[in-house]
Amino acid sequence: MKASSRNQFRGVVTEVVIGAVNGEVHVQLDGGETLIASITNDSVTTLNLTKDIQVIALIKAPQIIIVTDFGGYKLSARNQLQGIVSQVRRGVINSEIILTIKGGDHVAATVTNDSVQTLNLHEGQIATAVFKAGAIMLAVAS
Amino acid sequence: MKASSRNQFRGVVTEVVIGAVNGEVHVQLDGGETLIASITNDSVTTLNLTKDIQVIALIKAPQIIIVTDFGGYKLSARNQLQGIVSQVRRGVINSEIILTIKGGDHVAATVTNDSVQTLNLHEGQIATAVFKAGAIMLAVAS
Amino acid sequence: MKASSRNQFRGVVTEVVIGAVNGEVHVQLDGGETLIASITNDSVTTLNLTKDIQVIALIKAPQIIIVTDFGGYKLSARNQLQGIVSQVRRGVINSEIILTIKGGDHVAATVTNDSVQTLNLHEGQIATAVFKAGAIMLAVAS
Repeated sequence: MKASSRNQFRGVVTEVVIGAVNGEVHVQLDGGETLIASITNDSVTTLNLTKDIQVIALIKAPQIIIVTDFGGYKLSARNQLQGIVSQVRRGVINSEIILTIKGGDHVAATVTNDSVQTLNLHEGQIATAVFKAGAIMLAVAS
Repeated sequence: MKASSRNQFRGVVTEVVIGAVNGEVHVQLDGGETLIASITNDSVTTLNLTKDIQVIALIKAPQIIIVTDFGGYKLSARNQLQGIVSQVRRGVINSEIILTIKGGDHVAATVTNDSVQTLNLHEGQIATAVFKAGAIMLAVAS
Repeated sequence: MKASSRNQFRGVVTEVVIGAVNGEVHVQLDGGETLIASITNDSVTTLNLTKDIQVIALIKAPQIIIVTDFGGYKLSARNQLQGIVSQVRRGVINSEIILTIKGGDHVAATVTNDSVQTLNLHEGQIATAVFKAGAIMLAVAS
């Protein structure tokens, strides 16, 4: 698949929760981390999303927040991947931050330059990529 | 209405599904495509979103993924609009891709320059704009 | 907490609605405005999100639409904060708009330069920052 989403992770479905309109799909990445995706029930059915199925999880870079210090706070977002900043690419207004997480996967997040400055984002730094379950699309081989 | 959302499509509500907290609203665009929006039940009630009502669907450009080759994969996202790339505007980190879809509507997607390169995005190319039901806001004349 | 999200507002939980998979949390900001966040039930439980708890609401700038004229339309998005444009920072493709809302809080929205032109966005202008309940993350002191 050729898709513009900067983040595309291979994994296996480990759990599917069906709600009234929306469901929740748990995906264990090949690198070891677990993602939780909010998917409509219709898509769970159409894509036949069941336990043990191979999927690709897609997340757009602008949907991801970078946290460098939780300062005693917990965040409601279901996906929180710790890693090390491996690249900072500066633009005029926004920068792209690349985080290397467990298992060697790379996470790309778009943040404003103000945040790069405020958080003093730089290579080698420990940081966490945080995103909501609603930010994930799943791809399944048909 | 003057709103900053790059994508604003006129259409008619064809179906409303009510869930526990969130509902789903189906909108047929004037150009022929159908969109599916995830809207809270409260908004369905407040805006009196019922069948046959005229609406405008708003989607921000950074919420849209561009797929040029599904390579045998199916995507969970409820909205997938095929079209032809009619413009590629390069920035320093991000580019804006304009897709002309069925009925002549234009879809604007913000993608990173890395994706422009990886997908070799260029004018005249067939591509699909993909976005989740949760990415859509609906506007109704009051 | 040090997080890259441009928008971080302090407030107090005033209401929690539990659904099938997703819940809704109402937060009154210190500045007076009320936000509505769509949070999974699991996070409501894990973070012990109950009435009167202090929280920080985080919203990424690319998730926010700026409306300068509703033109008789109502929008489905649950969060609509009116304010005055206090800054316009131009990039190559995107600009960052800063809105000062009730109580002095600042809202940052990323919009395309096309929208800056179409809406004639400039300092001193009255505008509304609009975002969906799904765009909000909540942080709680642990």
